Amino acid sequence: LIDTIEYLKKNYPEIPVILDGKFADIENSSKYYAKLAFEKFGADAVTVNPYLGKEGALEPFLERKDKGILILCHTSNPGAKEIQECSVLVLTLYGSFHSVWEYVAHQVVHHWNKNQNCWLVVGATFPEILKRIREIVEDLPLFVPGIGAQRGDLEKTLRYGLDSQSGGLIIHSARKIIYASKRKYFADAAKEAAKSLRDQINILRDRLRS
Amino acid sequence: LIDTIEYLKKNYPEIPVILDGKFADIENSSKYYAKLAFEKFGADAVTVNPYLGKEGALEPFLERKDKGILILCHTSNPGAKEIQECSVLVLTLYGSFHSVWEYVAHQVVHHWNKNQNCWLVVGATFPEILKRIREIVEDLPLFVPGIGAQRGDLEKTLRYGLDSQSGGLIIHSARKIIYASKRKYFADAAKEAAKSLRDQINILRDRLRS
Repeated sequence: LIDTIEYLKKNYPEIPVILDGKFADIENSSKYYAKLAFEKFGADAVTVNPYLGKEGALEPFLERKDKGILILCHTSNPGAKEIQECSVLVLTLYGSFHSVWEYVAHQVVHHWNKNQNCWLVVGATFPEILKRIREIVEDLPLFVPGIGAQRGDLEKTLRYGLDSQSGGLIIHSARKIIYASKRKYFADAAKEAAKSLRDQINILRDRLRS
Repeated sequence: LIDTIEYLKKNYPEIPVILDGKFADIENSSKYYAKLAFEKFGADAVTVNPYLGKEGALEPFLERKDKGILILCHTSNPGAKEIQECSVLVLTLYGSFHSVWEYVAHQVVHHWNKNQNCWLVVGATFPEILKRIREIVEDLPLFVPGIGAQRGDLEKTLRYGLDSQSGGLIIHSARKIIYASKRKYFADAAKEAAKSLRDQINILRDRLRS
């Protein structure tokens, strides 16, 4: 991992490195995880899990103004329903929230994003939830896994996920690209798979704009 | 980490190794995290985060009948209140549940513990919640961090946390032991700190038994 990131930083410094560590621990441990991610690995952004809340857990990440903090909100796996869709009733000045993921989205926008470095992670496999999250968070950027091997719907991801400027999304595909081929020219196959997804995204986005 | 665990396994094979990785990811990643924890590191147990739910996330851990799976329920940090204490209303055959941590405790006992390998992680810093969790989970074992540097209450931890057989608890102190001294004889100081905590636990437990 260190070698890969070093190679990227040296040869493609314009590519942001997101370390998908899904971190969350008590403050003393999170401090060292943040150090590990940003100093040792040189990541530009990390994913974090919101279950421990902000105080004494995620602050060592959130205080890094120069880094992106991608907070799990509604994940792409089927079990996302179990805890994240738990029925909740929270009334706030900004409206009422009926599930854990809605409440997480609300807390991030209104209480965790003081340094304007927060993103939400929202799986492409639940498009109606993506739509509702875009409404709650307005133009906060979203990181969307689940396209590719997990079969999320790309068209709906763009239709529901793009912000008011037709941007604000990182759409993430891993296995469909890195395992595009197991043959000798696997690297070329991966390149083609990445290009093809990029082109599909741009075509769909242009269509939605017009 | 690998060296420390190897040393323990060779010299003190009776000591269980709990890898506090707070894992939780989509199934494909969790599969490799479980492999890393149990095969590469040789851990006997791991901690996991319940936010992603069981399906397509924690199954690669839970299916390991030979390993302990310690699931975060109510953590020891102050931010535990934010998401874990969110007001919920879930009605089940077994009763009604009013917060996320109560619901997690319920799900673990009734749906995640098929292999009898689940523990709950409950911080010592919220003793009233520990009490309620012991009621919900009956004799399920509990892992209790927060004694020591985080100033959890040891007497209440035992009073509320012990199971019906006066057992079922692992009480965890880290910094108070490993940082007991920074001098030359730090190892002896750590040994004394561990012994002292053990003795306190045993004295309190005997008192509660009688």
